[in-house]
Order: sequence, then structure tokens, then C-alpha cells
Amino acid sequence: MKQRELFTKTIKENPKDEKSINAQLLIRAGFIDKLGAGIYSYLPLGLMVIENIKNIVREEMNKIGGQEILMPSLHPKENWEITGRWNVEEMYKIKDNNLGLGWTHEEIITPLVKKYTSVFPKYIYQIQTKFRNEPRAKSGILRGREFLMKDLYSFHTSESDLNDYYEKVKEAYFKIFKRCGLKEKTYLTLASGGAFSSSFSHEFQTVTDAGEDIIYICKNCGQSFNREIFESKCECGSTEFEEKKSIEVGNIFKLQDKYSKLFGMDNIVMGCYGLGITRMMGAIVEVFNDEKGIIWPKEVAPFDVHLLELDTDASEIYDNLQKEEIKVLYDNREKSAGEKLNDCDLIGIPIRIILSKKTLEKDCVEIKKRGTDELELVKIKKLTEFIQNEL
Amino acid sequence: MKQRELFTKTIKENPKDEKSINAQLLIRAGFIDKLGAGIYSYLPLGLMVIENIKNIVREEMNKIGGQEILMPSLHPKENWEITGRWNVEEMYKIKDNNLGLGWTHEEIITPLVKKYTSVFPKYIYQIQTKFRNEPRAKSGILRGREFLMKDLYSFHTSESDLNDYYEKVKEAYFKIFKRCGLKEKTYLTLASGGAFSSSFSHEFQTVTDAGEDIIYICKNCGQSFNREIFESKCECGSTEFEEKKSIEVGNIFKLQDKYSKLFGMDNIVMGCYGLGITRMMGAIVEVFNDEKGIIWPKEVAPFDVHLLELDTDASEIYDNLQKEEIKVLYDNREKSAGEKLNDCDLIGIPIRIILSKKTLEKDCVEIKKRGTDELELVKIKKLTEFIQNEL
Repeated sequence: MKQRELFTKTIKENPKDEKSINAQLLIRAGFIDKLGAGIYSYLPLGLMVIENIKNIVREEMNKIGGQEILMPSLHPKENWEITGRWNVEEMYKIKDNNLGLGWTHEEIITPLVKKYTSVFPKYIYQIQTKFRNEPRAKSGILRGREFLMKDLYSFHTSESDLNDYYEKVKEAYFKIFKRCGLKEKTYLTLASGGAFSSSFSHEFQTVTDAGEDIIYICKNCGQSFNREIFESKCECGSTEFEEKKSIEVGNIFKLQDKYSKLFGMDNIVMGCYGLGITRMMGAIVEVFNDEKGIIWPKEVAPFDVHLLELDTDASEIYDNLQKEEIKVLYDNREKSAGEKLNDCDLIGIPIRIILSKKTLEKDCVEIKKRGTDELELVKIKKLTEFIQNEL
Repeated sequence: MKQRELFTKTIKENPKDEKSINAQLLIRAGFIDKLGAGIYSYLPLGLMVIENIKNIVREEMNKIGGQEILMPSLHPKENWEITGRWNVEEMYKIKDNNLGLGWTHEEIITPLVKKYTSVFPKYIYQIQTKFRNEPRAKSGILRGREFLMKDLYSFHTSESDLNDYYEKVKEAYFKIFKRCGLKEKTYLTLASGGAFSSSFSHEFQTVTDAGEDIIYICKNCGQSFNREIFESKCECGSTEFEEKKSIEVGNIFKLQDKYSKLFGMDNIVMGCYGLGITRMMGAIVEVFNDEKGIIWPKEVAPFDVHLLELDTDASEIYDNLQKEEIKVLYDNREKSAGEKLNDCDLIGIPIRIILSKKTLEKDCVEIKKRGTDELELVKIKKLTEFIQNEL
């Protein structure tokens, strides 16, 4: 893609109405635009990242037997009256209508599965837009009023089968966090099982200063706890903890028979497994940035390489890279070298390739990986091979 | 995919609350489920069809320079007050909030493009969920209260440039309809340009008895007109017309400077180009069905082939087809041959493959294409090649 044609724009100053780093950087780099508090448009660069994250999530969900469906956002009041959740604060309601906007889907998936299956277990998920009445939307895309979420629901005939699957989902989640670059920073955190479960639930908490949550990590055994259940002594006996700000990128929950019972499914226990797609995108930006801009992990980056031409023509290199299905953002704009370099750092594509008169004299391009300072000259005829080895 | 595991169910009787063929067949065949009037869940089979249609649309939009973005569904009142459309009947409004649900996106895209680009032309589209307050939702997924739509908006510095692009979109739309199997039945129909344009707009009307529109096709020159502008004499001089029921699957519109002016974009003219994704899925079912069920066109079908085993084991064939990346639905359920054959016709995958004791004796499978009566025996070792030639 030629940057000149791309529908986007970089902005030098931080937007005044955004305090979070993720919103500041994503807006400044031209990935998202703010329409209202907690409501964002995703420009082409932003949508590319979302699609990459969605595909990672989809692949890992399918590997553990998940089947993808798409449920509506408009929910009839009746379904929510059955569970007594119609009047919760989270629910946006439609004026003059008995419809609400879905902020979760237990009320829809449970009767759906009851109707369509008699063979268990079943693992059903969707990647879908959720709406949540959020009076304090101030963390950019970490906490939106409209956001993308993956929600998986599992249905089992025994608690032991639920327990086994719950462990599988844990593993799948860590594969997702690994591929998105977040694994090192993400803690499986013990949380309350809620009103309808004696067992614990688990949150996946990514440590970042932008986080609105706090977790306590045992300095001895590494187990972490959320604020709600933290008791200043770990199961291992230790009383020393690290206190960290964090953002909940996922949570998994044994619902037991709470919803299946309410919707008349006998002897079925359920699990539910949420993962914020847009929230994860925000968390990635919070974790991977420097004073110059975003540093995208490879698998979620909108492009593989950012090709800059300085006082020369790199269109042949652009064509050759594209032929090999390498995803290239090609900056052939008539801008100063400084502006191009700054934009490149701000946008944060993993590999920068510069073709200038100087490198051309040596039949080379200059390679720099985002987040490092090392410069490397690579022969133009070896470039494709070099890049393919990096991907 | 093994049919036994697929989250779906066929139903023998037509649902009592659905009068349209598309909803009856899609529900009976296990593609969709009705949550409320005009509100449907898409089960795995249904979502596969949607994804196929989306990919076709995406490819053809990208070919004419379209850039994909994703705009929100929650819209601030302010944007809609600028155009005077806040109080239209179509708009669902959120209770106790100055937010409405988007049923179109001119009010969002225009200021967005104004903010992010100074280089024209620009062609921006999204594939996104629309909400429309639809008091009479009775045509299944042809007219939903929540539905998927592709909306493309173009921005130009001259009317001639808009006119040129408008023609390109027409061509792209016919490519889409061709790939979805609808081209023969879809008429480019003249319609009014509305209050803000002296020129005509165009609707893409697919002829089907389920249609809520009526078009008039000139028997002499083939030009068609919608009800609103029909004047009983064609431009060619003829006064003989065929009157047909039809469903509007797309419409394209020269907005001129109506919205650009309102949002302060000087000297920019716009076009908008809608295409109903779920509506097109419904139209396909209305056009391609028989008394036994749906007959999916190849490119939108959820699977390439439906493999049925009768009193024997076809798992080796299943594995071999999958190895060649042929998409197979494999019916190894313990059901009678009659049930399997009926379900197969109802679901409507293009190619049926039967392995039975009888065919196995001849080292063959029996092939039947959906919508035809011809049976063909094909040697098992030649099967993959045979199928690849059909795709």
C-alpha cells in the first residue's frame, strides 16, 4: 500500500481530550478516530490490526473445538428478565421498545444451545460488537462503550468435563497472548467465582500503568490475586507481594448450572470465556511503545515492513516485496526525511527499510527494526530473502 | 467438518411465525435462528455463507480502490442534527442518552474524511452491522432490524470524476452479483435521485416473488424502472413492460454536495453505494431453492461437498478430500439413508458424494449435483481430481 493513498493521517500533538497512552498514540499514528466518549472508528491501519488479532483468536478457538457463530446485538427484554439482569447499569436500552443492547450473551446463547443441540459437550463462540453503558469511558480503547469481544461458551454434562475444558481454554489464551506479544506481561489471576460458584474464576491481567485494576503477585510462588480476593497471605505461606496496575484482557468463569437451569437445560454445566479484541489492541500499545510511538509485535502489525524512499525511487523494491506477499507500507510521499522517519517510528511497523541515494550507491538498503537502534545495510538483491527470514 | 459435531439442526416443519421462504428454509436447514422479529442469530453454516459473501464483496471493493474501515454503531445526536435526520423513524435511540444506532453512515463518514484526508478522490467502505427501526419485519433476513451491510462512500473534487467512479461501482456490483449467482436475476433499475439530486439513482433489484418492491422492465430495450419513477413509457418509445416483484439488494446514489456542504467540506461531491450482505444471502435463497431445500451457488456455499456414508465408513475419503483443502461436510451420523438424503437436499451444498456398500463394490462413489437429477459413479481414486475440476 502506498502511504500517500492510505486513508490516514499522523498528528504531531497529543489530542487534548485523551489521557491514555493507547488512545493518544493510536490517534496520533492514524489508527483510530474518536467519535465520542468510549466510541471510536477504526481507520484502515487500525482495522488491519483488529483483523490480525481476530484471526489469531479464531485459530486458537478453532483448535480447541470452538465453533463460530454470530448472535445479534438487539436483545429482547424477555430473555434478560429470566436472569434478572434487565435492569443492570451496563445495559443500553432502546427507547420506546423492549430491546436492549447486548453487553454479554449468556441470555442468548443458553436458549440457543438448548434448542439446537442434544450432543454435548459443545463449544460455541463469536467475535462480535458489545455495547456497555460506561459512564466513565476514559481509558481509550481499553474501556469502550462499543467494543469488540470474543465470547466463548461451553456446555458440558459433567463438572469434570467442564474442569478439563476450562484448563484447555487457559492454554489457548496463553497461546493467543504469546502470539500477540503480551504473554510476558500477562498474569493468570485468581478472582472470585461470583455469587453462583464456590470455585474461583480467573482473569488474565496484563501489567501496565494504564491499568484500572490492581493485582498482587506473590514474590515467592508467582501466583497472582485480584483486589477482590486478596488476603495478604498466599497459599504458599508467603506474605510478600508485588502490587501492580493491570488491565483485564480476558476472564474465564465456571458458570456451573446458573444459566442452564434458568433456561431449562437439565444437568448441563457451563463455562464462559471472554477476551477483549479491541481492549487487547489497546493493551498491546500500552505495553509496546516508546517516546517516538508504537512498537507493534510482528503478528499483529498492520504491515510487515515500512519502506521509505529518500531522494530516490524505491518502487521497484516495493513491487518485488509485494510479489513475495510481504505486506509493505510504501512511503513515497513528498515529505522531508525527518517527517518520514518520525511518522515511521510513530506508526511502529516492525521493520523499517530505507532506500536513499547513499544506500543506493552501495546497492543496499538500510534496515532498522522498530524498538532497536541498530542499523544494517543489506544488498538490494538479498532483501526479499532477508525479510522472509525475519517474518 | 463432521455433521455430527456441527452446531446446527434440521427441522422438518416450517416455523409457524415465518412466512418468507428465505427464513423458512434457512431456519429449517439450520443456518439461522430467530431471536425476535427481524433479529436473527447466524449459526456456523449461516456464518460461513456470510463470510463467503463478505469476502467476495471485499475483493471487488478493493479492486476499485476501496479502503476498508470500521465505524461505530453508537452515534452522537449532534452529528445527526446537522443533517436534520435525528428524528427519522428508522433511528433506534438509546434511552436516557443522546445516542442513536446507525442505520447509515453519511453523518459519520463525512466529518471523518474531512478530518483525515486532503488528497482526493477517496473511496472508503465498511462491512458493518446496521440497525433500523422496522415496525414490519416480516421478510426474514430480507428486511431485518439488525443486518449486515457494505456501505461505500466516495469523495471527489469534480462531478465528472464522481460520474466515472459511479460507473466503476456499477461494474463491481455486477461482478459481485455474478459471483453470488444473482446476476441473471438482478436488474439495474432507475430510481429517483431524491431531494438533493437532479440525476437518477440506481437500485439493483433481484427479481423474486418474495420481493416487496415492484419493477417495470421494458420489453423492447430491457431498461427497468422502480415504482416511484415509472411513467408507462420508456425512453426507447416502448409502452410495453413486464411487471415483476423484486428485492433491492443494492443501491447507488450520487449525493453531490449535500453532505459535504453540511459538514463544511468545500468543493467536494460524494457518492454512496450500499449493498446488503445478509439481504443478499436471503435473496440467494429466494432465487435458488426447490421443494427439497436450498441450492447454494458454488462461491457462497458453506462447504464444497457434502459427503454421506450409508452403511459403511467414508472417513478415509473425508481425510483425503480435506488434505486437498476441499471443504467437506461429512455426514457420518447414525441416521437412516432417507434422513441423510433429505437433510443433504435441505442444506443444499453444491455436490453430494455418497459412499455406500453398493458403490464401494465398484470402488466408486456416487456423485449428484444439487439441483440436478443426474447420478454419476466416480472411481474413488479419481475423486479428488474430479472434485477439483468442479470447483
